[in-house]
Amino acid sequence: MTLALKIAELAGRMGAGDLSPNARYWGKTAILDTIGVALAGSREKAPSLLLELPGVAAAPGAAVVIGRARRTSSLEAALVNGTAAHALDYDDVSGVMGGHPSAPLLAALLGLAEESGASGADLLLAYIVGFEVETRIARAVHWHHYDKGWHPTATLGVFGAAAASARLLRLGCEETARALALAASLSSGLKANFGTMTKPLHVGQSARNGLFAALLAQKGFTANPACFEHKQGFLAVFNGPGNFDAERIFAGWGKRLAIEESGLGLKLYPCCGSTHSSIEAMLALRREEPFAPESVTRITILPHRRRLPHTDNPAPKSGLEGKFSIQYCVARALCDGAPRLEHFEDGAMGEERIGRLLALTVARPHPDMAADGAEQWGAEVVVTLADGRVLRKRLERYRPPGPEGTSITRDDLWAKFSDCAARALPKARIAPLFERLETLEQEKSLQPLTALLESKEGVPAAHAAE
Amino acid sequence: MTLALKIAELAGRMGAGDLSPNARYWGKTAILDTIGVALAGSREKAPSLLLELPGVAAAPGAAVVIGRARRTSSLEAALVNGTAAHALDYDDVSGVMGGHPSAPLLAALLGLAEESGASGADLLLAYIVGFEVETRIARAVHWHHYDKGWHPTATLGVFGAAAASARLLRLGCEETARALALAASLSSGLKANFGTMTKPLHVGQSARNGLFAALLAQKGFTANPACFEHKQGFLAVFNGPGNFDAERIFAGWGKRLAIEESGLGLKLYPCCGSTHSSIEAMLALRREEPFAPESVTRITILPHRRRLPHTDNPAPKSGLEGKFSIQYCVARALCDGAPRLEHFEDGAMGEERIGRLLALTVARPHPDMAADGAEQWGAEVVVTLADGRVLRKRLERYRPPGPEGTSITRDDLWAKFSDCAARALPKARIAPLFERLETLEQEKSLQPLTALLESKEGVPAAHAAE
Repeated sequence: MTLALKIAELAGRMGAGDLSPNARYWGKTAILDTIGVALAGSREKAPSLLLELPGVAAAPGAAVVIGRARRTSSLEAALVNGTAAHALDYDDVSGVMGGHPSAPLLAALLGLAEESGASGADLLLAYIVGFEVETRIARAVHWHHYDKGWHPTATLGVFGAAAASARLLRLGCEETARALALAASLSSGLKANFGTMTKPLHVGQSARNGLFAALLAQKGFTANPACFEHKQGFLAVFNGPGNFDAERIFAGWGKRLAIEESGLGLKLYPCCGSTHSSIEAMLALRREEPFAPESVTRITILPHRRRLPHTDNPAPKSGLEGKFSIQYCVARALCDGAPRLEHFEDGAMGEERIGRLLALTVARPHPDMAADGAEQWGAEVVVTLADGRVLRKRLERYRPPGPEGTSITRDDLWAKFSDCAARALPKARIAPLFERLETLEQEKSLQPLTALLESKEGVPAAHAAE
Repeated sequence: MTLALKIAELAGRMGAGDLSPNARYWGKTAILDTIGVALAGSREKAPSLLLELPGVAAAPGAAVVIGRARRTSSLEAALVNGTAAHALDYDDVSGVMGGHPSAPLLAALLGLAEESGASGADLLLAYIVGFEVETRIARAVHWHHYDKGWHPTATLGVFGAAAASARLLRLGCEETARALALAASLSSGLKANFGTMTKPLHVGQSARNGLFAALLAQKGFTANPACFEHKQGFLAVFNGPGNFDAERIFAGWGKRLAIEESGLGLKLYPCCGSTHSSIEAMLALRREEPFAPESVTRITILPHRRRLPHTDNPAPKSGLEGKFSIQYCVARALCDGAPRLEHFEDGAMGEERIGRLLALTVARPHPDMAADGAEQWGAEVVVTLADGRVLRKRLERYRPPGPEGTSITRDDLWAKFSDCAARALPKARIAPLFERLETLEQEKSLQPLTALLESKEGVPAAHAAE
């Protein structure tokens, strides 16, 4: 039996009964969060430019283009929605995958679910199957795959998208294996293009290509089911002989779901993940010992040293620079409670009360958090007030919200979602959408939900990139 | 200056004045031949299944889907036409590229030329620019790239398609470099899927993706112009450090066009290239010493030993097996003058007069053609007749028709083209189409020509795969 057939068989055995309440909760939460960031991302330049191209998202169809007035085929919707979902780099992460697990899955599934009349429960199960497949293949190829320069969200996400789509299409084992074999030949994406619009495009492509592979396999399109282990197949060509361990795909399959043990984490703030522990420390300090921003005379930020080289920027000029300025992100947390999307628009850098705080801030590596210790995400912040008091908060570790990390309150989830959704949707529609997504499994079909994702283009105009 | 910028600058300097009459002739001939094989290929299963998928080639647009009644966007047409052009593996080859140079170029350019109002001369120049770029990048990465398992027609064809499309869109140097950088992130295709429908799909994808990259670059989509030399860029990730030589891209650029020196070759027969020298030897024998097939009592085929392991099949059962049976191909040449498409339909294997000849045929490695000599494409055929005469013809070398190989007569070109085109077009339209393609440079716009490529689906019904 080939590897693709074995993956297809194990994925095919997964049923709704295998989903623990925890897996259900986090699956739904990840889908909700991904839809939120896709709404916000829909106003970014990468998906907006895509929609200007002749032939893109112009095919007729019932699939929603998130945050737009347009409907198109599920294939085209996958391309645009996948690009939107990753455009802000605000979508969830997986430590095992070395990338963003949900964007390729959700982008492939949403339109297909609409076209095929699937229910919310079908969508959730297909998502969890796709999550299992992409993160299990990741185990076989990392970290060589990652270090070499492949973009795992795309190169592995395409397999997740193919497996998830195959599940929603109710493909058999042999057809699903062919979908994976097709996906192997469509897998692409180089890290050399990080920092450009091509990075989110990778994700749109992986969603589209994974769905494409499943639709082709369903029609009888042929591909080699030995595509993984073939001497000129995915493992040997992408990783090279000796740089992978195929057995790791299967170890423990069926015992505990990957979504529960592979480090799914939600990004709570729309800025570099290395700033998040310092933000959390500042938020904890504010909660525990409230003080007025105006009374601050000095701020010292002491993150683990690994967090600093790419985030040490005391005077960011643009929104993008702000995302990689630990000083700016912590100042925002101090003033505003939590960094939000509007804080990373170019105009936001010049705000006077923030400028005052930046001038009082120093950031340096934490003096007693071990460089190579097991915990590399700790941080401490120290605030000196005009009355001479010195407040400090130290976090030894940080894990983003997720099944293995910290929990997340409904308020925090709502705060991020509503901030994101407000970029594309009228305010009155955001709470009903949020509530429907919270109870996704009760949706008999997805049309009522996706109807809420449509938006007249350019509304709200203030945030439109076009 | 990055590699992509340097390629873009050199490609941008190429003008109509740089095209020698030989380059023009072979460029036009390759375009004509590619359109012929795409017409024949349009009836194969891979492009037919593509057209059944919801959303594929459904976007409105002016671009012809070769051999169909449908028009769509240039992007979607590129996908289907590229798949059709390679569906029979009958399209031209390049020894330098290790693949099929014209299919990705022509498929990307044809619809774009229609949409942009380009002339035949514009199309020809863009084709030659694309040919230059894809075969020059090939020099930098082969043969490691090829041996490793990448499918160069796709992984390198995407750069040719991007550069050719950029030229037709009149992109500047910086935009063209971005198109190449985008293409690097879209490059894909594994040899593990050879022998399946996914192989021609690779070519359709490379055409679509190359055009997509150019269209995105034109709109201002960003990508890293250092995508080739970046430590996580195309050269390091696809080939690995030490396994490429980027300088070879540029050596001699501007001296002699790649199309003239990179071994472009047309495939004259729709069967494995390793059978072609034996077919040629039999055809020469027939011309020089005519004899009746019925008088033959023995046939001995003696190709260079490298040609035989994959073509030694004395009793092919299916059309596909017939393509890889040197005995069958030579018997067809003896009886029918040259193997044609109809000879590789499944029913053709059972023909009685062919069966009689197969029973009289032996094939073995040539006894005195050196295994590792410089010439590995020679062949000899020996025919014994009922009257005791023994006829023999020995070809020391074989080169397919092309700028560096043998010339091709108009009759031979027409014989292949008309055989191919008859699969999709009414007979009366084939000669006018052939003549227009012969004088491609005189076409002010491509609409009159591409109108001849449209066909009511399913006509002629006998060959339809659907």
